[in-house]
Parts: sequence; structure tokens; C-alpha cells
Amino acid sequence: MKIRFYNARILTMTEGSPLFEGELWVEDDRILYVGDGKDLDGFYRRTGKECIAWDQEIDCAGNVLMPGFKDAHTHSAMVAMRSFADDMPLQEWLNTKIFPLEAKMTDQDNYDLTQLAILEYLTSGITAIFDMYLSPKDIARACIDMGMRCVQVSGLNKFGPALEVMEERFHQLNAMHPLVSYFMGVHAEYTCSKELLEDVSALIHKYKAPVFSHLSETKTETEECIARYGMTPPQFFDSLGLFDYGGGGYHCVYFTEEDMDLFAKKGLSVITNPGSNTKLASGIAPITRFLEKGINVGIGTDGASSNNCLDMFREMFLTTGLAKLHDNDASAVDADEVLRMATVNGAKAMGLTDCDVLAEGKKADIIMIDLHQPNMQPLNNITKNIVYSGSKQNVKLTMIDGKILYRDGKFLCCEDPEALYAKANEIIARLSGR
Amino acid sequence: MKIRFYNARILTMTEGSPLFEGELWVEDDRILYVGDGKDLDGFYRRTGKECIAWDQEIDCAGNVLMPGFKDAHTHSAMVAMRSFADDMPLQEWLNTKIFPLEAKMTDQDNYDLTQLAILEYLTSGITAIFDMYLSPKDIARACIDMGMRCVQVSGLNKFGPALEVMEERFHQLNAMHPLVSYFMGVHAEYTCSKELLEDVSALIHKYKAPVFSHLSETKTETEECIARYGMTPPQFFDSLGLFDYGGGGYHCVYFTEEDMDLFAKKGLSVITNPGSNTKLASGIAPITRFLEKGINVGIGTDGASSNNCLDMFREMFLTTGLAKLHDNDASAVDADEVLRMATVNGAKAMGLTDCDVLAEGKKADIIMIDLHQPNMQPLNNITKNIVYSGSKQNVKLTMIDGKILYRDGKFLCCEDPEALYAKANEIIARLSGR
Repeated sequence: MKIRFYNARILTMTEGSPLFEGELWVEDDRILYVGDGKDLDGFYRRTGKECIAWDQEIDCAGNVLMPGFKDAHTHSAMVAMRSFADDMPLQEWLNTKIFPLEAKMTDQDNYDLTQLAILEYLTSGITAIFDMYLSPKDIARACIDMGMRCVQVSGLNKFGPALEVMEERFHQLNAMHPLVSYFMGVHAEYTCSKELLEDVSALIHKYKAPVFSHLSETKTETEECIARYGMTPPQFFDSLGLFDYGGGGYHCVYFTEEDMDLFAKKGLSVITNPGSNTKLASGIAPITRFLEKGINVGIGTDGASSNNCLDMFREMFLTTGLAKLHDNDASAVDADEVLRMATVNGAKAMGLTDCDVLAEGKKADIIMIDLHQPNMQPLNNITKNIVYSGSKQNVKLTMIDGKILYRDGKFLCCEDPEALYAKANEIIARLSGR
Repeated sequence: MKIRFYNARILTMTEGSPLFEGELWVEDDRILYVGDGKDLDGFYRRTGKECIAWDQEIDCAGNVLMPGFKDAHTHSAMVAMRSFADDMPLQEWLNTKIFPLEAKMTDQDNYDLTQLAILEYLTSGITAIFDMYLSPKDIARACIDMGMRCVQVSGLNKFGPALEVMEERFHQLNAMHPLVSYFMGVHAEYTCSKELLEDVSALIHKYKAPVFSHLSETKTETEECIARYGMTPPQFFDSLGLFDYGGGGYHCVYFTEEDMDLFAKKGLSVITNPGSNTKLASGIAPITRFLEKGINVGIGTDGASSNNCLDMFREMFLTTGLAKLHDNDASAVDADEVLRMATVNGAKAMGLTDCDVLAEGKKADIIMIDLHQPNMQPLNNITKNIVYSGSKQNVKLTMIDGKILYRDGKFLCCEDPEALYAKANEIIARLSGR
């Protein structure tokens, strides 16, 4: 399948590259060419390609092509609990509302609900998710069947499947399909015993594997970890050797200077979740300090039951906006920096270095941002428009692995979205005993 | 013109009324009927109406009909400066970037730019604006020509047109067209001399007119007012008698308990602008305290050059989200409360008590929220879905004064949006000397 996008504004997100007018060609799952289209002879000579017979040519009408957003922290199937139990603090919400329902979820529920979440990701230009949830095999199937790129991470804890299951999934899911990969990880310090974490450490040393976990999300979590072990969650994890092969943390709201130094030294990633941290009143992460320390910061929506929407535009505005409020500085965390977080930095954390920027040979995970909307006009600064004024309404096309899955409000990857909506309503009715 | 909406979920926003299934009829500019459609005989008897010949019947497919959002603080024509000068604190931004450009804006610029802003309002379900800007007559023309409802407020200050001009506009604009009304107001304490404010007070006493103003937006503004007059901005205004006939303030971030008591006692309105306050790092307004004091709180986007988008969904999420962070309480400012602010409370502040709820005889300012989108599913709690998960993508239809101006992404009030986009780009190029 050969697709030509022309008449585009292109934001490659490669270091130092400005937005330019040009075209982008896709062959099967990869980017064949991206450039201003002026020296195509050079391209043909260099690649040995000749006149290409296009399967599809798309006039971008001056709209922006850019790498798809990487949603670097998700619990997709939690869409079932969207607006189910709001306005509650994290621990109460988890223990009284979420955990009892999750105990009743079937594998098929996870498959169906993940598919619903995927539709929502596509409307927001999200082309890859970093998903931690129950039934990893079913999540993978849901993603493969719809064409979503998915990096899964284990949410190992003392109540769930044993360590051996994580090891088995690590092998199984990393060999399953090019769209799917799997990281080792643990749910959080407060849901794991020290012994379990020591066992995880032994396992990740066997495979030289990175580890991700919810980390210092709330003040209570951080204080209780210090009370238990005399260390913050990142330092406790590091003391067990869990970060010896990289990885990082989700949320990272209550990081000390020492925690940040540790992350910087070990090359760990922070995934910030400003929507969830806002709605659950967890706090504001110190993004400016992370950046000053040179830490890789990606952005995630978290699950729909705590956020409640899966929208990278909201997260981008909150990432910069909350940093401005936190620092009392309107210049904090520039829009271009936020776009890097939502694309390249997320990809780096997720091991998707083949899907991070628009360049020849990279995976074709591409979105088109509609500038022909009032909220994008005038075109004083297009990247600032995207971060400060953009919304789902501006996502004109979402392509993953060379396939157009969403275009002009239509889901090309799903014949019957209404059937998925109906299933989601049935599932939550059954789980909640309504 | 008679339009019948059927198969709808209806959120009237009248006190205590739950969402119900039913239909809504519009005759010309007003709501003729709203109800479950079960006792239509009673309606016919009561109203003397007989079998109605519909001009248009709209199957709502289970989507939500609700009152349109009232954007209770806008500077519409500032869309020209969207993403023109970001990441700067308020005073520097005003003095070095905004004021010099505004000095060059023509009446026609104001007309064209206001029309561009109107398109954006419609995409976000905004059916009325509370607009403070240059060239009020041209703003009014832009609104009338497109069908937007507009309450204007004077931004009187010591650099602009004299008091007599405000008095003249007060008469002229309040008599101009049913879609347009005009309030007296001043830009801010820091742009007015005490003498000018005393003159305004004399004038509003002549007409028994309410006064609105930017008020306690930043810490600096508040401190400087205290240094000048020994009082906070609200108390200083009140000491001059400016609030003797009602009105209120925009922003209201740095309110003391005494300021709040004053607002409660005098029945004044707070218009909160969380997007702008976030982006300019101005601070977080104490919304929970306002509500505890019984103050009427509406929501506004502010201008596109400080926000940078005109989107009531973002503002609604920020209103509750920032309150949760501010109070360190995930239950702060419930979603239903936020919906009231964005509709009924805004209408009250703007004197639009005929456009506030869906009820027989009220003006037909109505929006349809699309539930057939993944971000609205499942339907655990529809009002929470709208506030916590809604976005412009969910605005399926916007009707003002009985006319459908926007539907399914198309502007029925504007033949050529592209021409407006082009004009906006030309205007900012000319103003900035690019």
C-alpha cells in the first residue's frame, strides 16, 4: 500500500527541524519519503525507486502532518468506570469503587472496553498507548484487531497473578505481533510487599529489563513509603535494584530533589498525568525542575475513570498550564517542549524509537491536524496553536503503522462503534449490579 | 419557523429537574414546548395551539438538548493575537505586545475578527458572549449579521473614548437589536484614574446601572490598588458607589473574605476565567469559597490571545479541576455546579434571564451534545461526562434565537469561513508589520 500526502505542512519533530511545506509518502507500514518535494530526483537515485504507482493520494490542504501522540500512561479498559465514581480522593476511590468492580471483569470485558478506549484515542490523535491493566493478552488482541500500537506494562501487585505469570507474558506478548510489546512493571509500592519487589528485581536482572510503576502519585503514598522504609518510593525502588536497567514512573508528583537526581542519573522517564492529578486533587508535578535536570518527561492520560477523558490536547494544555501556575511563571514549559513530551519523549519511554518522528524509514504513525478551523486561525504560531488552542476537533486523520484508522470523524477500523457503546453500557451495568 | 426536536435527552437546567427523555419545540425565537411528550393534549388545550405544521423535524437520536453556554467574559476580536505573544506575564504582555497592536485596529478589523471568534464560539456550544472590546457598534454588527447573542460591556479607561461616549453607546446599543445589549463598565482599576471612576459612579447612579470590570486578576494589581487607595479593588470600587446597582468582576483571583462578603451582600457576580489565569500564571480563584458565600459565579474564556482558545469545555474542566487542586479536595465543585455556572449563572450575570434554561416561553438558545462519541460512553452519568470528558467534538448543533447556526461541523451562519481566516491573517500581518 502506497499513500502520498501532499500539500502539507510538516512537523517532523526531529531536533531543530522547523515546520515546512512539503509532502510525505508511506509505503506499507513505514515512511518512504518526507521532504519539501523539490529534489525528488535525488530521492529516486538514492533509493533506486522509480515512478511510484500510488494507491491513494491525499491533498492535505495545508494542514499539519506530525507524529501521532504517545499516550504514555493508560488503563484503557477503565472506560467502563468513566463518570461512575467521581469527586473522591485516590485511595478511597480505588478501595471502595474501583477494586471491587475490577474483580468481576472478564477477559472479554477487557477486550471490548479496550476497543472503546481505542476509538477515543484515535479521535485525539493518539497512535500508541502505554497500557497497564488486567488481561494483557486480551488488551493485545483488542489493539491488534483495531490496528492500535500498544506497549503494555505489568501492573504486578500482591493481590494479582504471580511473578511467573509476568515472566510468561513478557515472552508471550513481546513475540505476539509487531504492534504489541510488553514491559515488566509493578502497580505501586503500596500494593506490593518488599519480598515481591525483591523477586521482581531478581527477574529484571535476569532479562536486563526496565521497570515502570506508579510512583509518588500522592502525598499520602509518599509519606507512607517513607514511614515503612525510610525512603521515598523512587529511592526505595532503586535500593532494591529495580531501576538498574532503566524504566521510570507514572505521575511523579511528590518528587524530592534527590528523586530527580536519581532519575536523571539513571536515565529514567517521568510520565506526567496532569488531568488525573487535577481531578483527584493529587497535586501538581514539578515539570520545570524535571526538565532542568534533563529528565525525559512523557505525558499520559491515565484511565478514563480518573481523568475522565482520553484526550492528549487537554493533557498538553494542563502540562504547560499547571507548570505556569506551579512556578508562578507564565513562560514555564514552552509549547514546543510540550509537543516533544507528547510525541518523542513518550516514544522514548515506551521503547518506540521507531515511531517517534517523521523521517524516512520510521514507522508511519502520523496524524493530520486541521488548520481549517476557527480555533487554529490566524496562523501566528502553529505549534502554539496546537498546544494552547487545539482540541479533538482538529484531528482530521490518524494513521498507525501505515493504516488510516480514523478520518474526518469516521472510524475506518471499526464497523459498528454503536455496538461497542452498547457493550460498554451492558458491562458496567453487570459489574455494578445496576 | 417551527422546529421540532424529538427523541432527545433533555437537560433543562431548571432547579432540581433531572435529565429526561422527551421533545422540544421551537417557534420562531422561542421555546414553545419542552417535556416528555406524553400529555400533548393538555399542552394544546392550555395554549390553544392545534396540530402544528413543522418546518423542520430533527431526530436527536438520544442526544442531549441543553441551554447553550454563556461565555461571560470575552474580548472576541483578540483572536487576531492568538499565539502571537505567549508565555509572558499579564502586565508585560499587555504593555509591550497587546496595547501597541490594538492602537492600530480599525472598526472593520473588529468586525471581521469578531466574526472569526463567533465561529469558534459556535463550535463550543456558546450561545451568548459578554464582550468587552474596541468598536462596540462593529462588534454588535458582527453579532447581528451572524446571529450571535451579545451582551457588551464598556472597557472604559483613561486612554480611550470619554465617558460621554459610553453613555451614548449605552443608549444606542441597548436599542439596536434584540440580540444585542450593553452594560456600563470599566477596564480595570489600574487603567482608570480615581476621578474617572467617580464620574462613572455619577453616571451609573443616573441610570441605576450595574458595573462590571476586571477585578483582582493578579497579585500585583491587587497590591498596587491597596498601596494607592488602602483598599482592595472591589472595596475601592464599592467605596465610590460603583456597585450600588449590581454588576461584578472578571477574574476575581485575589479576593479576600471581605471582598467576598461584599459581593454576597450586594448580589454581585464573579466571572471566573481559569484558562486565562492558568496560561498567564495569574493564580487560582477561590471558587469553593465563592459558592459557600452564595455568590453567583459564571465562567468566561477571556480573549484568545491569553487563553488561547474559546472553549467552554476546557473552562468547565479547569473550573472544577483547579478548585480541586486549590482546596486539596477531589470532591470540590461538583460537575452539576459547573454546568450551572456555564449556563444559568452566566445568564444571570449578563442579564439574559430569558435565555438561561429550557422552558416554555424562553428564548431558543439551545445546543445538542452528541453522546454517540466514544468519550461520552458508557452513560454512567451524563452531566459528569459533559463536564469531565466533553469537548468541542461533542457539539452537534448550536441554535441561537431559534436559528440553527452550526450543525455537524458546518457553519450555517457563514458562507465562507475560509475568507474570514484569510482576513484574520491579513489583519495581524498588517498590525504587527510583518
